[in-house]
Amino acid sequence: MAMLCSYQKMKFKVNNSSDFARQASLELQRGSIQTPAFMPVGTNGTVKGMSVDDLKETGSEIILGNTYHLMLRPGDENIKTLGGLHNFINWDRPILTDSGGFQVWSLGDLVKISEEGVKFSSPYDGKKIFMTPEDSIKIQENLGSDIVMMFDECTDYPTTYENAKSSMELSMRWAARCKKAHKTSSALFGIVQGGIYKDLRQESLNQLLEIGTDGVALGGLSVGESKQEKLEILDFMSDKLPTEMPRYLMGVGKPEDIVEAVRYGIDMFDCVLPTRNARNGQLFTSEGVLNIRNAPYKMSDDPIDANCKCKVCKNYSRAYINHLDRTNEMLGSMLSTYHNIYYYQSLMKDIRNSIKNNLFAKFLKDFYNRRNLDMPEGPT
Amino acid sequence: MAMLCSYQKMKFKVNNSSDFARQASLELQRGSIQTPAFMPVGTNGTVKGMSVDDLKETGSEIILGNTYHLMLRPGDENIKTLGGLHNFINWDRPILTDSGGFQVWSLGDLVKISEEGVKFSSPYDGKKIFMTPEDSIKIQENLGSDIVMMFDECTDYPTTYENAKSSMELSMRWAARCKKAHKTSSALFGIVQGGIYKDLRQESLNQLLEIGTDGVALGGLSVGESKQEKLEILDFMSDKLPTEMPRYLMGVGKPEDIVEAVRYGIDMFDCVLPTRNARNGQLFTSEGVLNIRNAPYKMSDDPIDANCKCKVCKNYSRAYINHLDRTNEMLGSMLSTYHNIYYYQSLMKDIRNSIKNNLFAKFLKDFYNRRNLDMPEGPT
Repeated sequence: MAMLCSYQKMKFKVNNSSDFARQASLELQRGSIQTPAFMPVGTNGTVKGMSVDDLKETGSEIILGNTYHLMLRPGDENIKTLGGLHNFINWDRPILTDSGGFQVWSLGDLVKISEEGVKFSSPYDGKKIFMTPEDSIKIQENLGSDIVMMFDECTDYPTTYENAKSSMELSMRWAARCKKAHKTSSALFGIVQGGIYKDLRQESLNQLLEIGTDGVALGGLSVGESKQEKLEILDFMSDKLPTEMPRYLMGVGKPEDIVEAVRYGIDMFDCVLPTRNARNGQLFTSEGVLNIRNAPYKMSDDPIDANCKCKVCKNYSRAYINHLDRTNEMLGSMLSTYHNIYYYQSLMKDIRNSIKNNLFAKFLKDFYNRRNLDMPEGPT
Repeated sequence: MAMLCSYQKMKFKVNNSSDFARQASLELQRGSIQTPAFMPVGTNGTVKGMSVDDLKETGSEIILGNTYHLMLRPGDENIKTLGGLHNFINWDRPILTDSGGFQVWSLGDLVKISEEGVKFSSPYDGKKIFMTPEDSIKIQENLGSDIVMMFDECTDYPTTYENAKSSMELSMRWAARCKKAHKTSSALFGIVQGGIYKDLRQESLNQLLEIGTDGVALGGLSVGESKQEKLEILDFMSDKLPTEMPRYLMGVGKPEDIVEAVRYGIDMFDCVLPTRNARNGQLFTSEGVLNIRNAPYKMSDDPIDANCKCKVCKNYSRAYINHLDRTNEMLGSMLSTYHNIYYYQSLMKDIRNSIKNNLFAKFLKDFYNRRNLDMPEGPT
């Protein structure tokens, strides 16, 4: 692929904006994506219950791969030998890989963190694994990632100012090591830490920009803090994040969380909600969440969402999805996941179109009206 | 649908034959199928792990629905209210429904059989259910079946001649009641019973033809008898079954069982093997069965079957399927099922084309050669 050899850096272009919200194009080594973008999560090298054709049909332009899971099974060196993650899973569009840091952090007491890196045991065979920032970059490069994330420590919540500060500083020292270790033509995103402390967030951002990064992610949010605390950080960051690079809010979220974050200038999102909730019978609709397991749907000939144009809503009734869920049939999860991902991607498309056409204010009004929710205040 | 109203009986036309083997067209109220045909099993109103688009892509022209499962969940009356099984599951091609008899029989000691019908408890809510031949027909008609099967008692194996005889005679009295109860323009197939006793099989066939049937199924095989015993019954029946109606061997089977039965003049098959085995990592290939869980496949960049033209074999490696299976990912079952059904349908297509083109003898030779198997003697 000639493009891969000659291509050196990603390109990011803001096409239009509405206050802090913006619609942009992000050109990566394996193609362009339009933002604000939602990235379905492909933990083990598959977005659970979705074929790659299905993913494309829903309008997904980029997916996320989990470094932690893939390094353990089947192993990043094995994936490299098998032609890289894209070839392995038959997905020719961009992939963002996380750094593995968050999943390791989620192991809690089972992980030991030092200046050099993290030590933990494989949950599959108990094997002791030591992982450094350099390892994380190497693993992501073995996978053939298009957007490599810097390895960081997710700051605990709640925690003291001092702990948040030293955790952030460790992450920044690791960020510098990641930058040095990064060799391929993939984009490299840094992660702003600092917990709920604004001056630490500012300091983290300053250091990342000093180190040099192609995009900025906000880490350590949605880990227990209140919605208000999260919004305050988003609000604080909204006029400090550089406008010329993409901004990624990791692990978010519900449709209303995404819409709200777009108002603060966020461009990229990932979350397991649409896939995980689908498998638990929770379906996203234009009017809110519908629990398909509820008894009234057993005989409902209506589609999941009358306003949805996806093939599931065109062809199947709530009664059928309810039946498949009750009988524990794989097709239930397949159809529910397809619908949820389609819903998320349609939402993103509506957001993008509204910003592009200077109609974002109207979009917001409609979005909250349809759900009978008051519109939050937004950026101050 | 005008066709449904004006149509009265199915049409069956043998296009070509090779000894007992034949290639035929079977016209049903919802379209034509080409035989020899394989019917994927859609137990709960879904062929496990397959979308209807996938099913069509594999060349499936007819599927089987399980009366027993559907009458319990979501209930045949509910399905009727929801527009019938075809509408419920979004499948517009023919559906054959079994009678429920076999599944009830499979409950073993939990079922009580009398002249009037069978009594059993729902495994879901313990509710006592009494089911007569008339009920079975009514349920299948509620579902909107295209081929309705007569309700029968599956004869135990092993059993005495006397038991096989009285069981067969009960099934024939039930067959007469089914014929009388059958009201719709669906086809109605009778089931030949009689265990491994040839004279009972002959007597059962005679009675069914006397009662009147659109097609003949062979029941009570693949329930424990030896391969030799089964082949002897097939051999015995091969020149006794009327040539002008379709012949259906229920619950069969492995590729080699299907190929062998076609030699004895069988037109239709159903079996859970390709779907169930897919979920257990057993994949059918032109060279035999491959267990994708085996360690050597972990790093194999080869497709499941180099001779297969399905989208799974075109796009994915054995290593990826092995990985999905090991990580218990739904997509592993989805891709494996797709491949297995595609394999079965390709096999049926090859059988049909070879008979049509007077090349069935060559087909048989190739089929057994590729698997390093001796060709069985065939009909005598």
